[in-house]
Amino acid sequence: MRDDSPSPPVDDIMCATYRALCRHGYANLTMQDIADEWSKSKAALHYHYDTKHGLLLAFLEHLFESYTDRVADPGEGTPRDRLHALVAAALDPPQADVTRELRTALFEVKAQAPHDDAFRERLEQFDRYLHAEIRGVVGAGVEDGSFTDVDPDEAATLLVTLVNGAHSRRVALGTDADVSEAIRSYIDEQLVRGESTQR
Amino acid sequence: MRDDSPSPPVDDIMCATYRALCRHGYANLTMQDIADEWSKSKAALHYHYDTKHGLLLAFLEHLFESYTDRVADPGEGTPRDRLHALVAAALDPPQADVTRELRTALFEVKAQAPHDDAFRERLEQFDRYLHAEIRGVVGAGVEDGSFTDVDPDEAATLLVTLVNGAHSRRVALGTDADVSEAIRSYIDEQLVRGESTQR
Repeated sequence: MRDDSPSPPVDDIMCATYRALCRHGYANLTMQDIADEWSKSKAALHYHYDTKHGLLLAFLEHLFESYTDRVADPGEGTPRDRLHALVAAALDPPQADVTRELRTALFEVKAQAPHDDAFRERLEQFDRYLHAEIRGVVGAGVEDGSFTDVDPDEAATLLVTLVNGAHSRRVALGTDADVSEAIRSYIDEQLVRGESTQR
Repeated sequence: MRDDSPSPPVDDIMCATYRALCRHGYANLTMQDIADEWSKSKAALHYHYDTKHGLLLAFLEHLFESYTDRVADPGEGTPRDRLHALVAAALDPPQADVTRELRTALFEVKAQAPHDDAFRERLEQFDRYLHAEIRGVVGAGVEDGSFTDVDPDEAATLLVTLVNGAHSRRVALGTDADVSEAIRSYIDEQLVRGESTQR
């Protein structure tokens, strides 16, 4: 975005980018596709974003903001309930803001990350944020004794990796129902202190 | 491959495909690139494989055979040792047969899977195979009492998803060292019956 431009209609452009990505996928996406969804000219789009790369970085930022709004430690309730809510939101962000098409397009962006430091940094943000939220809730559970004495950092790494793996399986294989169930069991049987841990 | 062709120099073509994928990535790969790596003409390559799609499916089959050779329940030792060996092999196939470049190219193939049933079926093979191997070892551990009373099916789903997530993080973020450590801890602290499970 240029410094001398008026405040751009960012939300509209982000929505247009969202629709264009869902419709065309990442590999074939052009600035013209995005301009078409925005119902303005390609020149108007270039006024706000010089390059497709810059626009996509802004889109990843936009997604990240929406992610942190929707995937967060609820802060209230037992650590167990908070962790279930947090992981469920990470697996399936509420308000269906991430459709199958967008998920697939983002997976393509992820496949570009090895070649693109800026993409990689934006993608790392999501994992780092989720890790910190989970670590906080697990730490609270360990502290109040409702969780077993796990290392909150390691448990968070495990859960973030499970969420990554679930997304990968959902995109590539079209399903992850068994994974959601296995993650819930992991939380209830391995993390939460209860009957099943009194072995 | 055509029925009337002589037995093709499959291994050579597979090696050429491997090198071409590492060099060019999946998105830009052409039959010419593969022919160049094979040091033969594109026509000669087309004699064996009609289409790039058919050749890539054959390549995925080839990788799957190599995968089952290298990633397998060792069958000897304690269930704990067998599980650690199996998961370590799945995270890092021995003999360095999967380089960073190939891993990235395969991730791109994975991103195509939602659009391509044949790719998806080939990719499912890897997960199904790994799941069955892990389930067998965990089942043996539960049976001989060295593991806690987990559901072997669920533990296998969790570990396969962790391996998927670790690969995804390694491709997209360039690292998964913390993940390997967290998976090892999960096995030793949550699956294997021992001091730490006598809570």
